[in-house]
Amino acid sequence: MSERFLEDFTVGQTFGSGRLRVDAEAIKRFAAEFDPQPFHLDEQAARGTIFGGLAASGWHTTALTMRLLVESEFKPAGGVVGASFDELRWPQALRPGDELHVETEILEIKPSKSRPELGFIKVKVTTLNQAEEAIQIYIGNLVALRRSHV
Amino acid sequence: MSERFLEDFTVGQTFGSGRLRVDAEAIKRFAAEFDPQPFHLDEQAARGTIFGGLAASGWHTTALTMRLLVESEFKPAGGVVGASFDELRWPQALRPGDELHVETEILEIKPSKSRPELGFIKVKVTTLNQAEEAIQIYIGNLVALRRSHV
Repeated sequence: MSERFLEDFTVGQTFGSGRLRVDAEAIKRFAAEFDPQPFHLDEQAARGTIFGGLAASGWHTTALTMRLLVESEFKPAGGVVGASFDELRWPQALRPGDELHVETEILEIKPSKSRPELGFIKVKVTTLNQAEEAIQIYIGNLVALRRSHV
Repeated sequence: MSERFLEDFTVGQTFGSGRLRVDAEAIKRFAAEFDPQPFHLDEQAARGTIFGGLAASGWHTTALTMRLLVESEFKPAGGVVGASFDELRWPQALRPGDELHVETEILEIKPSKSRPELGFIKVKVTTLNQAEEAIQIYIGNLVALRRSHV
């Protein structure tokens, strides 16, 4: 699959992704480096917390989502480059053993006013587990290259 | 420093953090696992891209920010637990050798309507480099425990 320029996207278009399984070791390893809190580090310690058991850091979920997004068929020309993100939330915790995949929906497409070679794509990115439950949703404003200026 | 309950925070309060230096190796290692794109993986390949040189993944910056936040004097009771995030943006790229620190400002405090033991704190979290330039800003809605219900 070749890269898509701004002109190749249409509003309402959706893209799926591959799947990625997350085990307890990966959850603890990420947490030890970036989010060292009991509910992300240790099953026993997690029980008495707001999560009621081991759960991945939300920032681990954003990172895993990016991996799935970069390797999906979405492929904007110039790469997946975020300008800003809104409404990032985690409706459910990512638990050990969950298998994730990502759905990307194109919400809006607009050329840049100041830079004719660029444009912006607004996307809704939903990360789902094996039960097809949303564990993360965000709205991303991504940069994309325009074909007419390559 | 002991934990702070919802009642211990006031609007306008700010918290600093320690500092964390990020080298090219750390940038590439994170990217190889979570955001394998040329501008995050290789100095040479990064030159011809929108970044004009090696830059960290934005999701690496969110993860490093969390590390600094968790270890700062902010310390909400029950941990740093995000309910949702808005207006996440990266005004400048995180470059190899940058030394980061975080500033957290309390914007809003409100008890939960449905769960008397909880409340929400809205914070503005700014991640700065050694030149005191903002490289990341977001608005976070965090969960905090209420002292009255412990």
